[in-house]
Amino acid sequence: MSRPFPDYLRQCQQRIDDALPRLIGKAASEYAEHAAPHLERLFESIHYSTLNGGKRVRPVLVYAAARAVNPGFANDEALDHVAAAVECIHAYSLVHDDLPAMDDDDLRRGKPTCHIAFDEATAILAGDGLQSLAFELLASVPDLADNRRLALIRTLAAASGPRGMVGGQAIDLGAVNQSPTLETLEAMHQLKTGALLRAAVRLGAQYAGANNDQLRRLDDYGRAIGLAFQVQDDILDIEGSTEKLGKTQGADIARNKPTYPALLGLEGAKQRAQALFEEAMAAIANFDDQAQRLRELAEFIVQREH
Amino acid sequence: MSRPFPDYLRQCQQRIDDALPRLIGKAASEYAEHAAPHLERLFESIHYSTLNGGKRVRPVLVYAAARAVNPGFANDEALDHVAAAVECIHAYSLVHDDLPAMDDDDLRRGKPTCHIAFDEATAILAGDGLQSLAFELLASVPDLADNRRLALIRTLAAASGPRGMVGGQAIDLGAVNQSPTLETLEAMHQLKTGALLRAAVRLGAQYAGANNDQLRRLDDYGRAIGLAFQVQDDILDIEGSTEKLGKTQGADIARNKPTYPALLGLEGAKQRAQALFEEAMAAIANFDDQAQRLRELAEFIVQREH
Repeated sequence: MSRPFPDYLRQCQQRIDDALPRLIGKAASEYAEHAAPHLERLFESIHYSTLNGGKRVRPVLVYAAARAVNPGFANDEALDHVAAAVECIHAYSLVHDDLPAMDDDDLRRGKPTCHIAFDEATAILAGDGLQSLAFELLASVPDLADNRRLALIRTLAAASGPRGMVGGQAIDLGAVNQSPTLETLEAMHQLKTGALLRAAVRLGAQYAGANNDQLRRLDDYGRAIGLAFQVQDDILDIEGSTEKLGKTQGADIARNKPTYPALLGLEGAKQRAQALFEEAMAAIANFDDQAQRLRELAEFIVQREH
Repeated sequence: MSRPFPDYLRQCQQRIDDALPRLIGKAASEYAEHAAPHLERLFESIHYSTLNGGKRVRPVLVYAAARAVNPGFANDEALDHVAAAVECIHAYSLVHDDLPAMDDDDLRRGKPTCHIAFDEATAILAGDGLQSLAFELLASVPDLADNRRLALIRTLAAASGPRGMVGGQAIDLGAVNQSPTLETLEAMHQLKTGALLRAAVRLGAQYAGANNDQLRRLDDYGRAIGLAFQVQDDILDIEGSTEKLGKTQGADIARNKPTYPALLGLEGAKQRAQALFEEAMAAIANFDDQAQRLRELAEFIVQREH
């Protein structure tokens, strides 16, 4: 545990960056000559969408939560399947969210978005394919009991679907040019961003065999940190530079999207982020040293600059 | 078994039409006041996309395949989860396929497509949500052993993903204005339409506990019938009337999409459909009377007029 957190973060990022292409694989070459190039292009767009220099917060949450429950799983290869699955869902949601009919973004982390680098139809299919791959990965986590695999699938499916992330995006769509209450804004973010971040913590915990009490505490941590992440995102939309963000600074404000600073003021938003951070820390206060990475991660989430 | 096939078909269609809205459910009303209407709209678009008077070939294949293996499952309620899951995937694929960036279709079965009835962003989300729901349903099939549930999830995920349906759509995209060989056309259709139809048969068989020999034979049936379905679709694109099809007759030809009649001539395409029908029948020749519905279904698939 002596390694500084930035090193741990880089190590986790490297780990998932290695695992994703291996686990997603390539298009099989067994297809007819004429079909193969199109499948190759689809897989290219899928790899492009997952290997984009992202912060990998969700995989890191999976790794850190599993470690908090059982340090024996810290370097477990099967856990990579779980981390890759949640990142596939995240990557698909970004690809679809960037589409012209949605947020219409040309840049993502300083690189052309999928529909710009490829085309719109390919981006739709890449996102669709990534979602299937996520569930394929969870259904085949090596050396795990079937009931445990199913628990993971239930967690991810519920967090991704219309009662989770997709529902949050639907609320977000309807919220443009509206003046929602703070309560509505939180409901939206709890689904749109929060559900998947919370699921990442839960997936790591479930994989590692957390008991009910551990699961409940880690779930509380995940809910608080999931919301804190979004509050900080809104703050960065005002304070961050376009260069550091890799996307256009002030984009949400320009789109007339509701944000925490718009509702609470910049100082109020920062206080909200801090309160959520403390909530997350309190939830896992009775965990031992093995939860240190989760604590550092919570700090990272509310202090990051991009 | 005395009931005529059209009655059986109607009964199965009614059964899945009843099951889908019940299993998909409504948006929970526990969300903040402002959020609820947007979620309601999302669920409306999801219900709209699944309840559209479709032929329900995939659910019927699920029901009929389960019955062929074990007639005891003929009226099993848990089997509705399996049938609904495969129909959710099918419905999502149609919604995304109809999008302006894909086939840009305004009509589906004589009704406005999802992005016309709602809007493009909602249609993207409805499709995304339907895919999550499909896996949520399979992870929670009542009264089924966990290893059986996982087998269903693996079958559906593989058939839906980049090595299945989504891959087929990618080949289809690339094939417009190309002149593929028959081999390429078949590779495309085996993935684009065939994979999910074949999966439907497999899902029914796996649910009902088919042994390896039964599964292999039913899989052969599913592969043949999956391809036959597409050949007949291509024939109907030429011979069918727009009124009966509920979509624009000749649309594929107009788009310069490769079709069986274009490659084989209309007579050649009909012969191909007949050969595939016979292949399907041969695959299940040693099944008893309980497979009668599968045989009738094969006949229906190559003789349907819409």
